[in-house]
Amino acid sequence: MPDPAMISVDEARARILAGLRPMPAEIVALANAWNRVTAEPVVARLTQPPSDVSAMDGYALRAADGGPGATLTVIGAAPAGHPFAGEVGPGQIVRLFTGSVVPAGADGILLQEDASRNGDIVTVNEAVASGRHIRRAGQDFFHGDTVIPAGRRMTARDVGLAAAANHPWISVHRQPRVAILATGDEIAMPGEPIPPGGIVSSNSHALAALVRAMGGDPTVLPVAKDTTEAIAAAADQVVGFDLLVTTGGASVGDHDLVISGLQTRGLVVDFWQIAMRPGKPLLFGQMGAVPVLGLPGNPVSALVCAALFLLPALALMQGLPAGPPPTVSAILGAPLRENDRRADHLRATVSTDNAGRVVVTPFPVQDSAMLRRLASADALVLRAPFAPALAAGAEVSVIRLDTLGI
Amino acid sequence: MPDPAMISVDEARARILAGLRPMPAEIVALANAWNRVTAEPVVARLTQPPSDVSAMDGYALRAADGGPGATLTVIGAAPAGHPFAGEVGPGQIVRLFTGSVVPAGADGILLQEDASRNGDIVTVNEAVASGRHIRRAGQDFFHGDTVIPAGRRMTARDVGLAAAANHPWISVHRQPRVAILATGDEIAMPGEPIPPGGIVSSNSHALAALVRAMGGDPTVLPVAKDTTEAIAAAADQVVGFDLLVTTGGASVGDHDLVISGLQTRGLVVDFWQIAMRPGKPLLFGQMGAVPVLGLPGNPVSALVCAALFLLPALALMQGLPAGPPPTVSAILGAPLRENDRRADHLRATVSTDNAGRVVVTPFPVQDSAMLRRLASADALVLRAPFAPALAAGAEVSVIRLDTLGI
Repeated sequence: MPDPAMISVDEARARILAGLRPMPAEIVALANAWNRVTAEPVVARLTQPPSDVSAMDGYALRAADGGPGATLTVIGAAPAGHPFAGEVGPGQIVRLFTGSVVPAGADGILLQEDASRNGDIVTVNEAVASGRHIRRAGQDFFHGDTVIPAGRRMTARDVGLAAAANHPWISVHRQPRVAILATGDEIAMPGEPIPPGGIVSSNSHALAALVRAMGGDPTVLPVAKDTTEAIAAAADQVVGFDLLVTTGGASVGDHDLVISGLQTRGLVVDFWQIAMRPGKPLLFGQMGAVPVLGLPGNPVSALVCAALFLLPALALMQGLPAGPPPTVSAILGAPLRENDRRADHLRATVSTDNAGRVVVTPFPVQDSAMLRRLASADALVLRAPFAPALAAGAEVSVIRLDTLGI
Repeated sequence: MPDPAMISVDEARARILAGLRPMPAEIVALANAWNRVTAEPVVARLTQPPSDVSAMDGYALRAADGGPGATLTVIGAAPAGHPFAGEVGPGQIVRLFTGSVVPAGADGILLQEDASRNGDIVTVNEAVASGRHIRRAGQDFFHGDTVIPAGRRMTARDVGLAAAANHPWISVHRQPRVAILATGDEIAMPGEPIPPGGIVSSNSHALAALVRAMGGDPTVLPVAKDTTEAIAAAADQVVGFDLLVTTGGASVGDHDLVISGLQTRGLVVDFWQIAMRPGKPLLFGQMGAVPVLGLPGNPVSALVCAALFLLPALALMQGLPAGPPPTVSAILGAPLRENDRRADHLRATVSTDNAGRVVVTPFPVQDSAMLRRLASADALVLRAPFAPALAAGAEVSVIRLDTLGI
């Protein structure tokens, strides 16, 4: 039986996403648009190609003149960017190249390799078909066509397409500014003196990198000591951010101090126990205008929860569809026991079998204190509550961490 | 029969990669290390956990004292970051929390939920097993362990792991500085006046985004006119770059003008015809200290060639293994005819079937002038020269463009 005090991963994610909104738009130069999410459709400002153009190097002529053995007189040339201003009449031919505008009067292309030229006389060696090797105006897109929809993360190809459609500026969703707050008396920054019994801060830096990998703009706040006052003082610094992510809480039960500290600044907490492993304790709430996502202090739990909850939150805030993180199907490389009542997220390596299929093999030990093992994992294998035992070779759903850069 | 004047995609790539070297190292702050490639292994500067620590909230005691019904005296507390300085003697017990250092003398953890506390007296409700719920010093890693190898692109988890291993600085390969040169009288920047018969520059911007997506540092040079002198003048501006990528050539046969222009500045060309589609003409050479990769002027050909040749080049230059771009196996969503003598790279959409398998469906029309269609493709289906016809459902190898952000 599921613990009635706990909610499912899906419900938790739905509640988080319901509390967030896409960021408004900003205008960026095309050169800065890569990996940003379009806030408006990109509509072509011209027709491409703008005119009928040649798909090959050769000659433009009236196709009816292009029978084998015919001889024609060269009346000019039309390099790309230098259209021939006149018209091609009977018995006439114009030199052109790939991308050259087909001159008025011409409806056929004689390929360079099918022509013999002697001075201004060209002899046709292969018959010319009307329209062949001509790219029609608008074959790629017409003026007014939507070439990139709103809500799409711009690839390098999209950048090229927006350029071809004559857009020097792109309207994109702003990058969410995410403040990251670690708490704990025992936490030291890397390279700084470590107090007795202390550990080096890792969550803030990993989460900042994850925010960056997902297209957000992270700010790492100074570590807050384990007092209500210190956390309240940190809360005063997050006005104007789009999201506050906290990690740890720490010494008297994860989040207790974070909650009491942030409550002095108006935090309203939504929930904080999820039927999952690793990472049961989680909070989501609202502190004034700033949504607050509270992750566990344990590094493995914090990063798995970030993949499950922060990643979709950042996607939604950038104008992408709301939903779970992207999953792929894979073949189990080792058997799995049946799962208990908590959704599990098994750290696993990815390989490719002889048939080219993606194989995931969970590590035999899944201790949530092993950050090194998490870092060497390529994927998380998703195990629903009470999922049955599976044999090696069964299909499972996985989150690829490697291809996400997280 | 393959055309003897052409070389294969694999041979071309091997020749390109043989002409490149990994960039030397630089030191970056950990906060800037995400997505960079390590030039040196990251070796742990401490042991994690540094001492035996509790995996749970509860009490530390001598396990032998922890029989059911036993009563023990609380002699102190050890919040995380505040180790208990004394030793736990017989009949004594110390309050601690997840991550707390296990005090000297104690070898067992009584879970909070298995204890009844009344003032300073704790009654044991469940037997305590020696060593249970204790994370041993070094369980994650020991001082001196290599936690991240050289030559790895840092994920967010790696950033966290390097932090936990106490590294504020990371040695990474420098980002290759890539100069991008488009040539052509007909080319206008987006938003600028377009000459008669002209087109808007798209390749430079798409290639710059691709270089950025692959971890390089792009510089878009001004478009060079179609004269030897203009291209030679542009060549004078690329001293100190790590790679020059050219695109187009243009009006008298791709690359002819680029080659003659760059030859005035010492270009030595390696080859320039590849048995592939789209994108047959390609050049690779060396101009002084700067390697030169010449891509076709056609936008679709340029981007496909970039995926096949520039992407591996940038990987190698960043210290990653040399080789073809990453491919995955997928199921064909439509039948394919047998291929001719040129390796083909079919633009295709990706979907997921009911069994969760990745399905690729090539567009029926593969015209290399259709940038919009390339931009809407999720993958390139690789077709070897003379590959046989395939039925829908057959397995093929594909390059995922979507997950690469290119």
